[in-house]
Amino acid sequence: MFITFEGIDGVGKTTQINLLKTYLESKNKEVLSIREPGGLSFSEKIREILLDTKTEINSTTELFLFEAARSELTEKIILPALNENKIVICDRFYDSTSAYQGFGRGINLDDINYLNTVATQKLVPDLTFYLDIPISQSLNRNINKVKDRMESNTLNFITNVKKGFDKLSELYPDRIKRIKADDSIDQVHQNIIKHINV
Amino acid sequence: MFITFEGIDGVGKTTQINLLKTYLESKNKEVLSIREPGGLSFSEKIREILLDTKTEINSTTELFLFEAARSELTEKIILPALNENKIVICDRFYDSTSAYQGFGRGINLDDINYLNTVATQKLVPDLTFYLDIPISQSLNRNINKVKDRMESNTLNFITNVKKGFDKLSELYPDRIKRIKADDSIDQVHQNIIKHINV
Repeated sequence: MFITFEGIDGVGKTTQINLLKTYLESKNKEVLSIREPGGLSFSEKIREILLDTKTEINSTTELFLFEAARSELTEKIILPALNENKIVICDRFYDSTSAYQGFGRGINLDDINYLNTVATQKLVPDLTFYLDIPISQSLNRNINKVKDRMESNTLNFITNVKKGFDKLSELYPDRIKRIKADDSIDQVHQNIIKHINV
Repeated sequence: MFITFEGIDGVGKTTQINLLKTYLESKNKEVLSIREPGGLSFSEKIREILLDTKTEINSTTELFLFEAARSELTEKIILPALNENKIVICDRFYDSTSAYQGFGRGINLDDINYLNTVATQKLVPDLTFYLDIPISQSLNRNINKVKDRMESNTLNFITNVKKGFDKLSELYPDRIKRIKADDSIDQVHQNIIKHINV
């Protein structure tokens, strides 16, 4: 089973992933939780380039770097773990690329879909949790964080990205579960595990 | 005018690029000569990852990294120089990706073409010189070079890559000029400048 978490920064993905992992382990499941674009020493090198605010790369280059990291993560980590019947939870996967590079930066969505398919060898998550909070709350949660390249984006950009996630959850309602994430941490967790049958 | 040089390693691309650059400059042309995947500090970082024999990355990841470097080189260097009416000479461009990653490593050529188009913003070279020598001679020329990841390939792989370049030059005869490169350096140069009208 392959589960992904999506949403704009500051929605609490890390917290919810840790809670879900603990829950699944309590059911005697083997769980691997990873984050995009990192997870391998190679991917971390790519992540460093992406996070470096001093490197001004163009949007298409950024797209290819995300896909390079994703290709490696899929081949080396995700597919082998799924083959061993582990549950893999990934903090962001290709929906983030559609939302950030497509809806956010305006790259053609057909191009993004094509690249996603090449990078993932057609792997599709079984379940995607889109954690959704109002943008104003996301900004409040982020206010004390040091900004890096991926988070130092304008309000307009974040608004477009959120619209992208909204749209994706409408396009793929069977796969993408939109979870109201401005409830208490435990309430959000309860709403997530309703969708899990283990 | 955008000119690219292609061929397997050891065919003498660097020598011929330098001779062509000198020739064009003697005709009072402004010439920029660059190499793929490098040319920018960002691209050199990517080149380092690609050349690193210790990093075993999969073929698709390698493809995305080449395209990332190409996207950046096209946007930041090649297109601005062409807009300033410079002649740009590039040591390898997307035909190398078709030959090495497609014919060599077996990645689907339609996928490669799609990615090439995204990375180059549909830029096509005006002229491509495919320097062609028998593989045995290429190996002799390389014998004393320190092998890196891009050059430490098997004979079988190189044979497939060469077949790829042969095929590409048949598919695009107007653009790709196949130049017999086991003549003297000066003879090869003369055969190249026959195609140049400046």
